[in-house]
Amino acid sequence: MINWTEIDQFTKEWIKEAGKRIRQSLSEQLHISTKANPNDLVTNIDKDTERFFIERIRKTFPNHKILGEEGFGDELKSTEGVIWVIDPIDGTMNLVHMQRNFTISIGIFENGKGKLAYIYDVMNDELYHAMNGSGAFFNGKRLPKLLDKPLSECIIGLNSIWLTENRRIDHRMLTPLVKGARGTRSIGSAALEMGYIATGWMDVYISLRLSPWDFAAGMIIIEELGGKATKLTGEPLSILEKSSVFFAGPAVHEQILKQYLSEYVEK
Amino acid sequence: MINWTEIDQFTKEWIKEAGKRIRQSLSEQLHISTKANPNDLVTNIDKDTERFFIERIRKTFPNHKILGEEGFGDELKSTEGVIWVIDPIDGTMNLVHMQRNFTISIGIFENGKGKLAYIYDVMNDELYHAMNGSGAFFNGKRLPKLLDKPLSECIIGLNSIWLTENRRIDHRMLTPLVKGARGTRSIGSAALEMGYIATGWMDVYISLRLSPWDFAAGMIIIEELGGKATKLTGEPLSILEKSSVFFAGPAVHEQILKQYLSEYVEK
Repeated sequence: MINWTEIDQFTKEWIKEAGKRIRQSLSEQLHISTKANPNDLVTNIDKDTERFFIERIRKTFPNHKILGEEGFGDELKSTEGVIWVIDPIDGTMNLVHMQRNFTISIGIFENGKGKLAYIYDVMNDELYHAMNGSGAFFNGKRLPKLLDKPLSECIIGLNSIWLTENRRIDHRMLTPLVKGARGTRSIGSAALEMGYIATGWMDVYISLRLSPWDFAAGMIIIEELGGKATKLTGEPLSILEKSSVFFAGPAVHEQILKQYLSEYVEK
Repeated sequence: MINWTEIDQFTKEWIKEAGKRIRQSLSEQLHISTKANPNDLVTNIDKDTERFFIERIRKTFPNHKILGEEGFGDELKSTEGVIWVIDPIDGTMNLVHMQRNFTISIGIFENGKGKLAYIYDVMNDELYHAMNGSGAFFNGKRLPKLLDKPLSECIIGLNSIWLTENRRIDHRMLTPLVKGARGTRSIGSAALEMGYIATGWMDVYISLRLSPWDFAAGMIIIEELGGKATKLTGEPLSILEKSSVFFAGPAVHEQILKQYLSEYVEK
């Protein structure tokens, strides 16, 4: 019998400690290396933070598996068992450029089912979290279910790159959606934008390509609040694959799927 | 002889007091009315805050003129004299939706020349300000001149609506610019994004249509930091008219103007 309350307590403690370390590191020099291209900046902070979590998880929960952005975790072929899906820094470009608006994102799954989720806005010291079946919370305060709003009253989280020609979607398909909404925002951390949807500050989140560690925590939180977290086709997300991502309250999710995305094919 | 240091001290005091009032009001019920359309939400907070400043300015500096978004100021035909250009809440939609990421924006001009500027991030209690010839500051700390970066290392503040068909610009003109940059962001408060450029958190700001109160403070701050604050044609901005807005460090401003905007005509 897995003690989820114990796991929850450990995770919250570790997140607070990791956050403190990151804030300390940021006052020191940033040592930045680049991966493939300048859009994929990686700092020592990403790597150190992933190692920080992996060491603790391995020691405390030796049977759990770990999927992490920086690659220090396990190679996973199935969703069996308990799996931690970790993005040590979601929004690395924000960390590098503005030293704010980046998060630690952790989703914990049992046999593919979301159990615990954490999105931690490091510089604001703000935690969005959920425990499957027990509710979702912002800084410990219970969040209400997502409101059912029409698209015309919704703010969409959407990176404007998807409105330029790209290989994932005919960008003209998204134009009427953007025009039908109240507005769009792009904060630069997918997980943070998912947190903003949990609190009702934004209403819809769309990306044409995310990795499991980008959406794992957000998916659990949004579903706990009665929202839909799917691909842009409406199909379920998997923590074993990259895909498009489409989060919203159930009514507007259905409205957008039918009116704006019926032609969309996942590539 | 105008005592700008005295005006600066009064303005900072008033901004802090107005910010405190706004934070208090937000814990009470928001009474929202709509102007023309739901994108133009106006709260009592906008109106009360504009009145708050106008009362104090009229009493303390009876010869100064005021241009304010909510229309309680003066009708201006020329830039003669001392003019306060005030946006009591820049980012009203953010105020309504997320109760964060909105600003008070104030630019003060003498015969059309920017003298003092303030962008106050109300919920974060963070002030971006400048005094012409004496520097620009973030929370009282002097900011360095804007860095000269190539476009490929720049983050652009740009609302994605300008990448969909619109009557201000052939949206396809902006596509190569977006693709040539490191990334884009849209925070939902023009003045706040201008503050982000002042601190170096973002590098370029573009909008196809802003009112003088949206850009007055940002223009003064960016110019004080050696940046360029113009229309998308490269022509100077005027506090007497709405126009497009294009802020950046001098080198990348020139690069973008030549490579991406040479076909642009202001409408």
